[in-house]
Amino acid sequence: MKTKVAIIGAGPSGLLLGQLLQRQGIDNVILEAKTPEYVLSRIRAGVLEQGTTDLLREAGAGERMDREGHVHEGFSLSFNGRRERIDLKELTGGKTVMVYGQTEVTRDLMAAREAAGGLTVYEAENVQPLDFHGDSPRVRYTRDGETHELECEYIAGCDGFHGVTRKSVPKEAITCFERVYPFGWLGILSRTPPVAPELIYANHERGFALCSMRSDMLSRYYVQCSLAERVEDWSDERFWEELKSRLPEDVVANLVTGPSIEKSIAPLRSFVAEPMKFGRMFLVGDAAHIVPPTGAKGLNLAASDVYTLYHLLRKRYQENREALLDRYSELCLRRIWKAERFSWWMTSILHKLDDDAFGRRIQMADLEYFTGSHAGRTTIAENYVGLPYERIE
Amino acid sequence: MKTKVAIIGAGPSGLLLGQLLQRQGIDNVILEAKTPEYVLSRIRAGVLEQGTTDLLREAGAGERMDREGHVHEGFSLSFNGRRERIDLKELTGGKTVMVYGQTEVTRDLMAAREAAGGLTVYEAENVQPLDFHGDSPRVRYTRDGETHELECEYIAGCDGFHGVTRKSVPKEAITCFERVYPFGWLGILSRTPPVAPELIYANHERGFALCSMRSDMLSRYYVQCSLAERVEDWSDERFWEELKSRLPEDVVANLVTGPSIEKSIAPLRSFVAEPMKFGRMFLVGDAAHIVPPTGAKGLNLAASDVYTLYHLLRKRYQENREALLDRYSELCLRRIWKAERFSWWMTSILHKLDDDAFGRRIQMADLEYFTGSHAGRTTIAENYVGLPYERIE
Repeated sequence: MKTKVAIIGAGPSGLLLGQLLQRQGIDNVILEAKTPEYVLSRIRAGVLEQGTTDLLREAGAGERMDREGHVHEGFSLSFNGRRERIDLKELTGGKTVMVYGQTEVTRDLMAAREAAGGLTVYEAENVQPLDFHGDSPRVRYTRDGETHELECEYIAGCDGFHGVTRKSVPKEAITCFERVYPFGWLGILSRTPPVAPELIYANHERGFALCSMRSDMLSRYYVQCSLAERVEDWSDERFWEELKSRLPEDVVANLVTGPSIEKSIAPLRSFVAEPMKFGRMFLVGDAAHIVPPTGAKGLNLAASDVYTLYHLLRKRYQENREALLDRYSELCLRRIWKAERFSWWMTSILHKLDDDAFGRRIQMADLEYFTGSHAGRTTIAENYVGLPYERIE
Repeated sequence: MKTKVAIIGAGPSGLLLGQLLQRQGIDNVILEAKTPEYVLSRIRAGVLEQGTTDLLREAGAGERMDREGHVHEGFSLSFNGRRERIDLKELTGGKTVMVYGQTEVTRDLMAAREAAGGLTVYEAENVQPLDFHGDSPRVRYTRDGETHELECEYIAGCDGFHGVTRKSVPKEAITCFERVYPFGWLGILSRTPPVAPELIYANHERGFALCSMRSDMLSRYYVQCSLAERVEDWSDERFWEELKSRLPEDVVANLVTGPSIEKSIAPLRSFVAEPMKFGRMFLVGDAAHIVPPTGAKGLNLAASDVYTLYHLLRKRYQENREALLDRYSELCLRRIWKAERFSWWMTSILHKLDDDAFGRRIQMADLEYFTGSHAGRTTIAENYVGLPYERIE
């Protein structure tokens, strides 16, 4: 089998890249280790930046999102018993975010790909990118016990943090930057109306809490927890009590509780691999970088890598500007580090840290200053809706 | 001897408070352990916020400052071999800072006090604030071997970090927040024209550097150094070479070097004592809080404490609103913690830290983001020129 771009991973990044290329007539094949059902079962992010929604529309996968997604014009930070709203729309000159679950994004992209006749090979096992430093890269994989090779011109590694793409690069060719946080998020999904129409990020002396949602009748709540906690020890009752203890009274008064339909603990990690291009292979999204979920940047940062690679490949195939591809790492990393900074900062100011008394006061002063100053609120808002994409010329 | 307000310390805070009260007809006496010459020999800050200059004018000590001081409309941050200017005036709607040495401020305040007939007792030793929790506080001191007592209604502790006022409070009545940085500033003063008309704060892989000035022919330069360094090991030549290695080439090209007329190493510390009022005694400025010099907040923060205490005492004596004085700590601390935050942040982003590789990238991302975004630059500018004083009503 032969194609122009071999895409490894059929999560939202791989599907979005494939679909964008497809619509430009740039032939591509997606290889995915799991089944479509498995891919759809992952419950992840739900807050989309405008750049991400624009890309989804460009990929022909924005229709249901525009119909069923919820535009959010702001969110709140809660601390010291009070709430401060960040008015995204007003502070950024009209920008907003869209609340629409990652599962739905993936479903829409799958449907769009199917409609466009794009090829996705599911259950492709032992995927191995080969010869990406030469002119004729290949991806070897097995399916139903048989070994196949996909010849291609470029490889896009959209296979996530634990994927094979980054691991196929020699250790000495890559530098990794990492911060592991000494706490996790215990999250539940429940078929209850959200406690508030907008997200609430809460700093509380018992630890961080987040009130989020997927739809009018699907709520997502999180509480910061120790990494030693086990999900089994958290009954729904215990979770709701802990959540209530960390929210302002007026919020608790509106909280509708109910049985959880999903409950899990996720660790928090900051991670960046540099560079992101190795010969004719590119790392995209979680394969190259991870952000802690505070700030909702993970999926959006993957989308901005996709934006960059898509446009570089388009210019390669439509304008024959091959040298431009060498700028991929630099273009991506500039924006990635700013999003890493924001995610790290949001994590630092909102969580209960093992810090000294001075550090705790500084955390409060950060919240006081940044929510109390117009310029401060604007820095939060412009990062939250997503910094502008780097220009590709 | 009897007075309304006993002020301990004749540094700029004590002199400014005394002079402001004097002009409102509120009787006060300043006690100072050292001689006037010693007080004037301390070389300290040189960047005054607008609020500080306004207060100096109100105290009748602004004339020479307005004639000889230099208004600065911006400063630069240097990193990664480039320079980014923070346009204070444009970003804050017209606010600027005044470069005028602390020594000159003190000299002008001394002259104003003398002209107004205010009493300052120099070489007052063994100063001891007494009975400040009762209705009749006193300050005991010895002078020329004789013990005196100054009866008063209020005591203002303007005697600095190492002063006696804070130490006279029982340990259990006070909470201290502190961060000691693992590096210092090696500074020199030289009779050379400043390398640039505005201050340059430089982040460099060899460590922080600062180009500052006192006047057209008096320059002040600093380089970050280890706390183990000794001034004796730093010849002028070595200092200039080290400074040059940390500045962008275009700056080095303009650097005029010369013999130092002062050279010293200062540690960096963040410190806040809470509360700042103990019965009828108030802590003012460095007696209650210290900031690292990055951001030039030390003297300005002392001036804002003076502003608060001055207005509270004025309302006490002119409007008989005694209860207002109970708000002193709260009013001061709100602004102090924001200035502590800014000074800590400026210190964190500009110095070479013992941080991991991820932390170093975040430092660069902070500099990139905050200098690259209009809102980000505005947060720097509005903190640098000084956040608004808390309203007293």
